[in-house]
Amino acid sequence: MTEPTLDVVALGNAIVDVLSDADDAFLASRDLAKGGMQLIDQEQATALYGAMGPGVEHSGGSAANTAVGVAALGGRAGFIGRVQDDQLGEVFAHDIRAAGVRYDPPAAKPRPATARCLISVTPDAQRTMNTFLGAAAEIVPDDVDADLVASGAITYLEGYLWDQPLAKEAMRRATAIARDAGRQVAMSLSDSFCVDRHRAEFRELVEGPLDIVFANEDEIKALYETDDFATALEAVQGKVRLAVLTRSEKGCVIVAPDGVHEVPATPPTQLVDTTGAGDLFAAGFLAGITSGRSLTDSGRIGAMAAAEIISHYGARPETGLKQLVSGI
Amino acid sequence: MTEPTLDVVALGNAIVDVLSDADDAFLASRDLAKGGMQLIDQEQATALYGAMGPGVEHSGGSAANTAVGVAALGGRAGFIGRVQDDQLGEVFAHDIRAAGVRYDPPAAKPRPATARCLISVTPDAQRTMNTFLGAAAEIVPDDVDADLVASGAITYLEGYLWDQPLAKEAMRRATAIARDAGRQVAMSLSDSFCVDRHRAEFRELVEGPLDIVFANEDEIKALYETDDFATALEAVQGKVRLAVLTRSEKGCVIVAPDGVHEVPATPPTQLVDTTGAGDLFAAGFLAGITSGRSLTDSGRIGAMAAAEIISHYGARPETGLKQLVSGI
Repeated sequence: MTEPTLDVVALGNAIVDVLSDADDAFLASRDLAKGGMQLIDQEQATALYGAMGPGVEHSGGSAANTAVGVAALGGRAGFIGRVQDDQLGEVFAHDIRAAGVRYDPPAAKPRPATARCLISVTPDAQRTMNTFLGAAAEIVPDDVDADLVASGAITYLEGYLWDQPLAKEAMRRATAIARDAGRQVAMSLSDSFCVDRHRAEFRELVEGPLDIVFANEDEIKALYETDDFATALEAVQGKVRLAVLTRSEKGCVIVAPDGVHEVPATPPTQLVDTTGAGDLFAAGFLAGITSGRSLTDSGRIGAMAAAEIISHYGARPETGLKQLVSGI
Repeated sequence: MTEPTLDVVALGNAIVDVLSDADDAFLASRDLAKGGMQLIDQEQATALYGAMGPGVEHSGGSAANTAVGVAALGGRAGFIGRVQDDQLGEVFAHDIRAAGVRYDPPAAKPRPATARCLISVTPDAQRTMNTFLGAAAEIVPDDVDADLVASGAITYLEGYLWDQPLAKEAMRRATAIARDAGRQVAMSLSDSFCVDRHRAEFRELVEGPLDIVFANEDEIKALYETDDFATALEAVQGKVRLAVLTRSEKGCVIVAPDGVHEVPATPPTQLVDTTGAGDLFAAGFLAGITSGRSLTDSGRIGAMAAAEIISHYGARPETGLKQLVSGI
């Protein structure tokens, strides 16, 4: 078994975010559930975009944000995801590479367009996401670069990908490659509605090939169909090597073979936009463990990276994260 | 003569800005003159973009920013400029309309792409701009909607447009339509290098069809080939009804038939990115005079709009400008 040359290889939807301020009345008028993510088609995307206020475009995508966060923290990261050969695809590819992440987009198919996520940010800093998946959903097993996956100490999968049958196969292939190469596999459960759609399979993954699972409170409760966090925590204990459970301002709980570790949240300098909080927490935690930090120190790095991302618009770090966590 | 139904109709390059942080060493390594604007071709744009860090996309364009500022201040604004039928064109059109500006893009030609301005923002908040004009440069006299121009109390022209022969003809046509309809014509000199390229013609415009000229200190000095601001001020006096001269933190000087009025600058809450300062000053001044404010009060509104825009990234207002200037 050769040494990994990358710390984290992430697989996910390659998405450009369109962020726009909105109020609760706007969400209500369009039947948008605050804090959630729903998939929309091109026609719905056009209608919603037309109704939104002026926007700002930032590269996004859950696992892509995590890969960028790992790189920003000094880790070595790669990304696998599909864009179209169009302007937003160019923006996505530029931004992730410029952030230091290895990314070679698979050859483009004639359509559809690069994915866009229309994000309404309310004054309470909550983000409500409507995603037109476009080219991102067209990922197939052949898009998984076997050498890239095998080169990464940890392969990180985005639960959202599970919504597309061929993307799911791509994730299974990546998981198999990683395991054959003696690497670890981590996954984010992404969204409680996503967990509802795929509960049985997500449980199998947690009890099977996954080494690390990331979930927020709603997601882990959805996985075990309980309203009680303690019950969900108990349910996941022993099923997977590491369950990293994030609870917003209540901090995170790391469920490990040697017990349960709690890490407090880092208060942000200001609370502007929660887009990417979970993605950057995962980035910090993964950057921590792959650089030999303890579980609790890794959780602290995750908390600090999450605090940075929610202090400004967009889900990619603005300030030097490496510097920020240099005390740990 | 009918009453105008719009306050300001702006003509300019329809551009999407790509903002990225950079340091002085980056500017030096690429031979970029800090604070300036230079035109680049597609190949240069690709090379420069590849070297830049991760970016964020905001709609921009000098006169377009002014139109948005007028609308944000409660004025009625329209915009004329050319985009391509591509993703950045869609972003530009969406953002300016969502800001309340009337905009019907001329039918797209097969190429080139929507204009992009690659903006490096240094820690001193200076912006250095490299513009790939693309579709914006393809504006022709026929793109000037005569009814739209005639409906505006003031037609506002962007000096940058003067670099393209057909765009220049489009501006001449807009000027003639405005004058025939008994409207006023204003123009921004845009950039001192732009003034150097077109000095003789810009002087003719100032002494001829223009009612209002906006220039910063460098631009008015370039127009009259002097190193001394007082000399430049004296030179422009009497040549045009209103010369509005902006001097960054030194405030602005309004040269009017009844004398010279000075208005102090408004200190920004924080200084982040000076992109759009001149555009938003012009927006505030135009919104002021078209709503019946005095010259000095209009200058104050301009100063406040400029202060807002330099307190954050991007050249489109983030906070409610109308609220901000409600005391004036």
